[in-house]
Amino acid sequence: MLQESSVDGSGSRFTPLVVAELAPDTNQETIAWLLSRIRDRQQNGGAELLVEQMGLGVAEEKENPNMFLIGASWQRLLAGAEEIGLFREYKDGSMRGFTCANKHNFKDFEGDGDSFLSMAECQHIIKHELDTLRAKDETHVPGHDSAKLYPGKSIVRRLQSKGILIQIFPLHENEELKRLSFSWYKRVKLSLQPLDEIRHYYGEGQALYFGFLEYFTFALMPMALIGVPYYLFDWEDYDKYVIFAAFNLVWCTVILEFWKRCSASLAYRWGTLSRKKAFEEPRPGFHGVLGFNPVTGREEPVYPNVKRQLRVYLVSVPFVLLCLYVSLYIMMIYFLMEGWALSVHAEEPTFWTEVLLYIPSIIYAVVIEILNLIYRYAAEFLTEWENHRLESSYQNHLVLKVLVFNFFNCFASLFYIAFVMHDMALLRQSLATLLITSQILNQFMEAFLPYWLQRRRNKKMTRKVQKRKTLDEKQLPLIEQVRLEADMSTYLGTFDDYLELFLLFGYVSLFSCVYPLAAVLVVLNNITEVYSDAFKMCSVFKRPFSDPAANIGVWQLAFEAMSVIAVVTNCSLIGMSPQVKAYFQDSDQQLIFWTVAVEHTLLAVKFILAFLIPDVPKHIQIQLARLEYESLEALKKRKMLEASELSK
Amino acid sequence: MLQESSVDGSGSRFTPLVVAELAPDTNQETIAWLLSRIRDRQQNGGAELLVEQMGLGVAEEKENPNMFLIGASWQRLLAGAEEIGLFREYKDGSMRGFTCANKHNFKDFEGDGDSFLSMAECQHIIKHELDTLRAKDETHVPGHDSAKLYPGKSIVRRLQSKGILIQIFPLHENEELKRLSFSWYKRVKLSLQPLDEIRHYYGEGQALYFGFLEYFTFALMPMALIGVPYYLFDWEDYDKYVIFAAFNLVWCTVILEFWKRCSASLAYRWGTLSRKKAFEEPRPGFHGVLGFNPVTGREEPVYPNVKRQLRVYLVSVPFVLLCLYVSLYIMMIYFLMEGWALSVHAEEPTFWTEVLLYIPSIIYAVVIEILNLIYRYAAEFLTEWENHRLESSYQNHLVLKVLVFNFFNCFASLFYIAFVMHDMALLRQSLATLLITSQILNQFMEAFLPYWLQRRRNKKMTRKVQKRKTLDEKQLPLIEQVRLEADMSTYLGTFDDYLELFLLFGYVSLFSCVYPLAAVLVVLNNITEVYSDAFKMCSVFKRPFSDPAANIGVWQLAFEAMSVIAVVTNCSLIGMSPQVKAYFQDSDQQLIFWTVAVEHTLLAVKFILAFLIPDVPKHIQIQLARLEYESLEALKKRKMLEASELSK
Repeated sequence: MLQESSVDGSGSRFTPLVVAELAPDTNQETIAWLLSRIRDRQQNGGAELLVEQMGLGVAEEKENPNMFLIGASWQRLLAGAEEIGLFREYKDGSMRGFTCANKHNFKDFEGDGDSFLSMAECQHIIKHELDTLRAKDETHVPGHDSAKLYPGKSIVRRLQSKGILIQIFPLHENEELKRLSFSWYKRVKLSLQPLDEIRHYYGEGQALYFGFLEYFTFALMPMALIGVPYYLFDWEDYDKYVIFAAFNLVWCTVILEFWKRCSASLAYRWGTLSRKKAFEEPRPGFHGVLGFNPVTGREEPVYPNVKRQLRVYLVSVPFVLLCLYVSLYIMMIYFLMEGWALSVHAEEPTFWTEVLLYIPSIIYAVVIEILNLIYRYAAEFLTEWENHRLESSYQNHLVLKVLVFNFFNCFASLFYIAFVMHDMALLRQSLATLLITSQILNQFMEAFLPYWLQRRRNKKMTRKVQKRKTLDEKQLPLIEQVRLEADMSTYLGTFDDYLELFLLFGYVSLFSCVYPLAAVLVVLNNITEVYSDAFKMCSVFKRPFSDPAANIGVWQLAFEAMSVIAVVTNCSLIGMSPQVKAYFQDSDQQLIFWTVAVEHTLLAVKFILAFLIPDVPKHIQIQLARLEYESLEALKKRKMLEASELSK
Repeated sequence: MLQESSVDGSGSRFTPLVVAELAPDTNQETIAWLLSRIRDRQQNGGAELLVEQMGLGVAEEKENPNMFLIGASWQRLLAGAEEIGLFREYKDGSMRGFTCANKHNFKDFEGDGDSFLSMAECQHIIKHELDTLRAKDETHVPGHDSAKLYPGKSIVRRLQSKGILIQIFPLHENEELKRLSFSWYKRVKLSLQPLDEIRHYYGEGQALYFGFLEYFTFALMPMALIGVPYYLFDWEDYDKYVIFAAFNLVWCTVILEFWKRCSASLAYRWGTLSRKKAFEEPRPGFHGVLGFNPVTGREEPVYPNVKRQLRVYLVSVPFVLLCLYVSLYIMMIYFLMEGWALSVHAEEPTFWTEVLLYIPSIIYAVVIEILNLIYRYAAEFLTEWENHRLESSYQNHLVLKVLVFNFFNCFASLFYIAFVMHDMALLRQSLATLLITSQILNQFMEAFLPYWLQRRRNKKMTRKVQKRKTLDEKQLPLIEQVRLEADMSTYLGTFDDYLELFLLFGYVSLFSCVYPLAAVLVVLNNITEVYSDAFKMCSVFKRPFSDPAANIGVWQLAFEAMSVIAVVTNCSLIGMSPQVKAYFQDSDQQLIFWTVAVEHTLLAVKFILAFLIPDVPKHIQIQLARLEYESLEALKKRKMLEASELSK
């Protein structure tokens, strides 16, 4: 697969898949012990992987010598695939858990099976095997007395939390990456993204993100198409806006429900839908008094749930509320400043007062960005301090914190303009400004800036090794490739990408009845987003480990919550509009009664729709039921055979 | 267990558990074939049960001779317990799926295990074995050419749908029943219901209903206690009503969420929480073109889903809406008639006009009862006609239809009084009248009327056999017991009981801010309801087959929907009250804005609470996780052993 194979200590050649970088000052005793544990046979509690120290490239004194290449034999990888519970297509077209015993019954298994697993799968398996490599009777890491161990503790996690293991990352495969980037974003085309190839190279989590991005873009197109005439013909009457908003609200529900079906189809095809989650290890930063895990019975740190709940409800929740209050306060100051600037400009308009008009917005934007940054750090610190046992629970709490604050920061000023100032023209203008500037900023910060930094780094590196050509045009030898990739930025997961989509969805849905063009802008943004995200994945970041996700997780919930809030905001905006008020001239009460009634009806329709549309398509439900039925029948048959043998 | 054991054809004695009654004119060929299929060994596709024709009691010509007693050996029942996936307590305290291979590791398994299964479980197993007795190569039931069969068709279901099998029911066990009824309702006591004993005798579905009834009663007590001073001191100010309503709304959410936890605890203890549902057979009435089931691959009737959906959405839904319209229309006529009667009485009040005042209510009540009855038949007919493949889906559709109509019938007049007539005094009065009359009527119709009918039938029967004593006081011989029970009414499931609780919950929650005493009345009703329902189960009805339910199913959803509607009604009632209006004298808009804001906040709090309170208690989550972890580890260990054996 990679262009070069490495030679390990015992003389057998292997393909390096994963790189582990230890701190440059790591004790030789620690290294020897770690390597022996990684190489040891599984029966003896080892990982049975192949590992080798990488030689120094061009012998410069500043390079870290403790880089290790890790690989595995095909037999080992297949056994690992069974351990992690990989689902693959069976000969009869159904998806089944892979087992070595009947490997030849799987569709893509040919010969020895050395092309059965994708490189991303192999890397995921190696990561899993390393993560579950456990201490036996060591009380501490040899050579590092402070790094305590106890039987059953994951060695890699301890090395990570003590800073001995700096990073561990999978290697890119240049040939495949070139093919993928070509079919993905390098040629001008009118086709869909190559989701299966993305999944093959980056894993299911990434592929689901790109699938969602694409689905979302297509789903917004009807709204964008309907929105265009509103802009072109300058339709200002609220009758038409009401129709647009009603369509919008129902449409949002429908697309979110259908995405669930779509995601289930993808996850079924990729084998993650019915894959059982392995028992989750505590995350590296988790600490507590040594006790016994009630599920596994293994020794591990235990932290009382009550304490964590207290930290969440007595510290984190008040902190988030305080931040929201501060953000609100700053927004009010901004509106005051702007009012003041407007009045100064109105009194005696000069060039300087015109400049003054822009000052509040600029200050506000800068302060908001700074606040966002500080809050992000604070949220990470707090969530870390809450001491969650599982990575997934940590992530959920972090997402929730950041989500609420970002939602507030983005939309509070719009809510203020809409429901306190009642200024629809200003609302439309602010919405447009916010949407467009945030899109441009995002694209810049997300892709071009890191790319530019990366290019500079690359150039430095290539200059160092006295080669003039850039990374894209030539095949670097393995050592250079590893050094280059080790210096690339680490991709921190799909969090920020989903957050961006979530806020865009907010711009489209929350105030759709005053600014129908938002959908058009978001569709345009999403089309470029596909390219910039694809580019970012392929050229800017280290390859991430694949993540066998079955759905987009907590984001589905976030998008659904947004669509519920959208019903409320749109109904009240329409209820407040002068045209609607004109219908109910004699009675304000009647007007509000009808507004609330329509809102409740829409909400009820949303919930009924969500209830009526099945989350998993019928044919996949049948496939899953058949598998379950077959395994039950097989069990029954085996029991019957045993019974009849006993009775003989 | 039963007082008498029967002798089957082969001379071995067995305890009869289940009775099957065939039509009196059934062909002897059919009977012989059926008996041989039931007795045949499992390897030959039989059910391997013991079965015997019951002799005629006192040789009267009018009795049906085709009554069959069915039982099974203990070995057969244990094997059946494994087949249905029974969960029982293991020696280490966890709940595990029963297997014959390690039966001695289960806690209650002693000696041969002849007291391991409760009688209800044995009867459930026999029912399951009979239901899954399938045709082999018969093309029709021997002796009945019109009763078509095809390989894999359930024989019992076909006999039922052709009217050859009249009924099949489990026998009561008089000793245990006497003990149960004593500890349940016959002695005056201040203790909880014996839920475990109820479950032991009637199965999990029944026990969960009684558990819910008890939980619901206790959960309403705080509301009842707070409601009493409102009645005693005649508190009429809305400040206090607002407090009561707010407490009420949050409380309703909390009790429903905690019921889920409570129900999970019960279901875990009873082993139904993690029990896998067996593959569901098509219901007896299901028809279609013969095809192949995509899940089992077996031949069975197939009915296109699209056709069913069309029937549901194009016929059933419009029909239900039409019925709601008719019901609304009748309600309007009632209000017109009442208004007319009032005006006549006001003009010149005489004795006859006073009588006239009551006439509309009486006519309305009678018409409503008739409508309810007709609607129930129509709903059953329509749901049957929709041709659902599964009993569960049939039940869900039926429940939904009946629920919506009953909700409408019960509460439409109250909604009309509250939100159109704005007459709070009349609302309170109507609420009280409806609540009290419906309670009295229900208790009468549900328990005393059937009991009286049953007594009359019993008397006739005992007079027939020239014995003067009643059922309760003596031990009837087996044959008489079977004849007596065959004539008892059939218990039609918990549907009507839950429906009654659901409507009571509506009376308490929907208008709680105008009539705080409702909770008191419902608590009192529930206490008598426990006794009348228990009495009904023990003395009026045939014993029902036990139903291994893990929760109260669709009713949880119905109660939650009611509590959401309650938020809307209570907030609008409070918003409309003169006292609240007085606060916002200058601006109607402000008033309604705040009402809506409070309502939305309450709804949001409900959803967040529902989200934050875990549905399954922590210790059960841990138990379930441990079981799953252990089975995964065991699998891994087995694979590892196999691999190391291969490598040797």
